[in-house]
Amino acid sequence: MNAVSLLAEIGDVGRDRWRGGYSRHVFEPAETELREWFTEQARRRGLDVETDRNGNLWAWSGMPGPGAVVTGSHLDSVPGGGAFDGPLGVVSALEAIHAVRGPAAVVVFAEEEGGRFGVPCLGSRLLTGSIDAERAVALKDPAGMSVAEAARSAGLDPARFGRDDEALSRIGTFVELHVEQGRGLVGLGSPVAVGSTVIAHGRWRFSFSGQGNHAGTTSMADRRDPMLPAAEVVSAARRVACRAEGARATVGRLVPRPGGTNVIASTVDLWLDARGGVPVDEIVAVAREAAAAEGCAVTVVEESASGEVTFDAGLRRALRSVLGDVPELPTGAGHDAAILAPHVPVAMLYVRNPTGISHAPEEFAEDADVEYGARALAAVLRDLST
Amino acid sequence: MNAVSLLAEIGDVGRDRWRGGYSRHVFEPAETELREWFTEQARRRGLDVETDRNGNLWAWSGMPGPGAVVTGSHLDSVPGGGAFDGPLGVVSALEAIHAVRGPAAVVVFAEEEGGRFGVPCLGSRLLTGSIDAERAVALKDPAGMSVAEAARSAGLDPARFGRDDEALSRIGTFVELHVEQGRGLVGLGSPVAVGSTVIAHGRWRFSFSGQGNHAGTTSMADRRDPMLPAAEVVSAARRVACRAEGARATVGRLVPRPGGTNVIASTVDLWLDARGGVPVDEIVAVAREAAAAEGCAVTVVEESASGEVTFDAGLRRALRSVLGDVPELPTGAGHDAAILAPHVPVAMLYVRNPTGISHAPEEFAEDADVEYGARALAAVLRDLST
Repeated sequence: MNAVSLLAEIGDVGRDRWRGGYSRHVFEPAETELREWFTEQARRRGLDVETDRNGNLWAWSGMPGPGAVVTGSHLDSVPGGGAFDGPLGVVSALEAIHAVRGPAAVVVFAEEEGGRFGVPCLGSRLLTGSIDAERAVALKDPAGMSVAEAARSAGLDPARFGRDDEALSRIGTFVELHVEQGRGLVGLGSPVAVGSTVIAHGRWRFSFSGQGNHAGTTSMADRRDPMLPAAEVVSAARRVACRAEGARATVGRLVPRPGGTNVIASTVDLWLDARGGVPVDEIVAVAREAAAAEGCAVTVVEESASGEVTFDAGLRRALRSVLGDVPELPTGAGHDAAILAPHVPVAMLYVRNPTGISHAPEEFAEDADVEYGARALAAVLRDLST
Repeated sequence: MNAVSLLAEIGDVGRDRWRGGYSRHVFEPAETELREWFTEQARRRGLDVETDRNGNLWAWSGMPGPGAVVTGSHLDSVPGGGAFDGPLGVVSALEAIHAVRGPAAVVVFAEEEGGRFGVPCLGSRLLTGSIDAERAVALKDPAGMSVAEAARSAGLDPARFGRDDEALSRIGTFVELHVEQGRGLVGLGSPVAVGSTVIAHGRWRFSFSGQGNHAGTTSMADRRDPMLPAAEVVSAARRVACRAEGARATVGRLVPRPGGTNVIASTVDLWLDARGGVPVDEIVAVAREAAAAEGCAVTVVEESASGEVTFDAGLRRALRSVLGDVPELPTGAGHDAAILAPHVPVAMLYVRNPTGISHAPEEFAEDADVEYGARALAAVLRDLST
């Protein structure tokens, strides 16, 4: 068994025919199937599997911490995501864990993408107490099911959700391997890189409401159509982000309600993903002005926000020395590793992605690079445990 | 039994919790339940119910045509529509049909809103041959099911879909009663009006495709994001329609795929509803230019188009004389009556809607006006059959 064939084993789980790629959302059937698969794989390796209070999975080698070397990633995906984002780190961890001398664990964090309940890295945020547990359990998926209900149906007690000092205290070092989500490694002659920084990122939900009505009988002058200010926000996000070096702003999710061709929408919800110094206030100002001009109301809710993270400098030097002076790369993607970084020494390894594309079916890594990554992770873990 | 209590009987069928109002799409469970309810109601009145080759329901009093007085409307709704648009004409017809001396029928047309398969008045277009049957049976709903498959599951033979001269030849006159979809009757002192014209209307689907990718790692310069040209079309539709007197343009349905917060969309489909002289070419030109500027592709498909219709002048005079010189009103809404108008003498009656809102839960008619409308329809039908 190796990392490539482990990935192949789950190649049919959660395929999304409409979007392409995979949709594996936390506690839904596909992600649940992956959890069961992971548990079986861990047991075959003699690891003891437990689910923590917040729904994260831990597969322990030896007695749980303190001072354990922990590695892992996540099994959930964005809607229509690629095969590597998350699972590559998990299968590499299963292959590499044997290299650790002493207590070690493979962790699978819950809801890293926020693809179901909206807040990314929900499992690691709960574990570290960086999201209020009451707020977290009340989050709802698009069908209206809350985290509390979904957790209960997965056999968890939402009343026990929240900061988990015991789980946190067991971690001596955390290393997350992840597919690269850009073309940073292409042309550098190395299949792997060490992570340097994660840019600041956050999500805002804009909810516009106007008056649903008939598309044919309502004169242009009489409309209060929330689609108009929503379109202004899409354009403003682009305009504003382009003015700030390194900033990124995206509207990839926009839901008009009721969504009929011959119906003026009554409400439009859209989600702004903004990173690396986007002046979100300017976009909010455009939203308020455009909504007012259309006679619409708008509310803006910050769903998550994370500051810039720089990974531990000493650990980065140690990894580079083990791996033969590989490149260091910053990333615009968020990771559970960045959530853990203020609490424990954390490092990240990226595996080359020749397409540079991620969160899409075209996400890719060559088999040889996948295996190289798993061996590199093993070498790093071995070094960290000696 | 009267029209108000007939409407109350179906008040719980097809309620849409997410959108509010009703979602009753052709051949789906709610609309099927309404068909069964209609069939039972018709039988109680001694009418013989049959389904024609195109899925329209006919409840006959006496021998089917030729020269029959026909009345009716539809039972399907837009997503999240009101309680009156369609059903008001059907229940009024059930109450009024007894007034006809000679052959008469209540008709329920299929898929008037185009809420499932995209083409409005699909049943009457098929009946009159104003849509190609091969094209019609290949239309698909958002889940990918074709008209042919849906028809088969409803016990129909899609190979027999198409122009139905026998059904058409039975109709001597067609009168459709409908809730008003604007505030045209408010303040005029009459609960009903006679329809004069239906403005030209059509639907176009714009499909933009770019490159799905990660919202955090893809620099602004490297994006091909189809949401940007889609937003331009929303703005352009408003701008262009406002320049032409009486024109209406709406984007009420817009679907980014995959639709994740942290994912640049790979495709965006949006539907333009344009009526009354909108220069659609100008909007298409904006779409092509904005798509090219973003490195995206765009295709534009005309899903339906109908010219302006003026209802039969003699019939309008006859109705006004029966009803005591009620107002005449034009409408921006499409109706099966307008599809039939080139083939048989057609008239429409509108019932006052104090909110002026339609295609939304706020659509309304007072009980007294509902009953007045049914009595007015009976008076008109009686006059037409003498």
